Amino acid sequence: MNVPEPISKLIDGFMRLPGIGPKTAQRLAFFVLGMEEEDVMELAKALVHAKRDLKRCQVCSNITDQPVCSVCRDKSRDRSMICVVQDPRDVIAMERTREYAGLYHVLHGAISPMEGIGPDELSIPDLLKRLEDETVQEMILATNPNIEGEATAMYLQRLVKPFGIKVTRIAHGLPVGGDLEYADEVTLTKALEGRREL
Amino acid sequence: MNVPEPISKLIDGFMRLPGIGPKTAQRLAFFVLGMEEEDVMELAKALVHAKRDLKRCQVCSNITDQPVCSVCRDKSRDRSMICVVQDPRDVIAMERTREYAGLYHVLHGAISPMEGIGPDELSIPDLLKRLEDETVQEMILATNPNIEGEATAMYLQRLVKPFGIKVTRIAHGLPVGGDLEYADEVTLTKALEGRREL
Repeated sequence: MNVPEPISKLIDGFMRLPGIGPKTAQRLAFFVLGMEEEDVMELAKALVHAKRDLKRCQVCSNITDQPVCSVCRDKSRDRSMICVVQDPRDVIAMERTREYAGLYHVLHGAISPMEGIGPDELSIPDLLKRLEDETVQEMILATNPNIEGEATAMYLQRLVKPFGIKVTRIAHGLPVGGDLEYADEVTLTKALEGRREL
Repeated sequence: MNVPEPISKLIDGFMRLPGIGPKTAQRLAFFVLGMEEEDVMELAKALVHAKRDLKRCQVCSNITDQPVCSVCRDKSRDRSMICVVQDPRDVIAMERTREYAGLYHVLHGAISPMEGIGPDELSIPDLLKRLEDETVQEMILATNPNIEGEATAMYLQRLVKPFGIKVTRIAHGLPVGGDLEYADEVTLTKALEGRREL
């Protein structure tokens, strides 16, 4: 016996998503059969709408369903600061802190010669255009603390130097709630280097 | 900043699926944004079709996109045996063995007084109707080896007695490749009880 085609197609569809193998895909597909038709339709519509309606913000490249994203449109945000992140999800993480009131710039990746990603594959030309405006006084580099993220931060720092803008990098050290005993040596080195007088 | 509505709706949609929490849902939703539009459409369509086109087989209650499922239609299957399982997924698991050539009956659950599921909530009346046909000679009870599954098997065994049909239960014991040392005592007891002369 073969699985009926509608269900095998759904299993195949789920398997295209990250972290979903054949067993999970089968479980999800059979779960869908038991869901209310209305909920299934809503999920299907959400998939189509998310894919069709979302594009990059013309200013900061964050994803949005408007020409310009809600952060860039928000008059109350501090326009003198731009926080540069790799991914739209990083913006969500930053916003969750409720501590940052400036603007963002989403690179959509990091420089990685190994993967053939150079500055032109990222939204770096758009970033430079934004920096020409004299309201920007500080650029916070919040790329990931790994090889690609650090390389991107270094590259941007050098690139932006001629503009005379303050360039900062978010701090690296022990995560809050972390245990010194279990910290890796690189993190601990960074934590020592970044120590501050109390 | 709020996440744009199309993406938050998609995250909500994914979160309705089992085993998918807010973090995984967010990861999946952003992955969808990076997928080919064609693939996203296919997944959306697969969701709708699976929900709309699949129903229960008129004979065995297995899920199918036809009035009668492919196993029940297959003339080469042994019509003297019916294997009773709880779930359509159990049929897939049984078929994977390529050892069983009989028919199935899918109960869609097990008797569970705690959850208010009695024989009438399951497809037991349909099963009895099938047994009236004299071609059926053996009913294999392959419900799960847990309280509900065992209770259902016991109930069916008593119910079917008057028909004079052979009723069997699949064997319980050590799983192949398992380690005796780590087997729980109930499994080990079952394995001892079910020992066979070599």
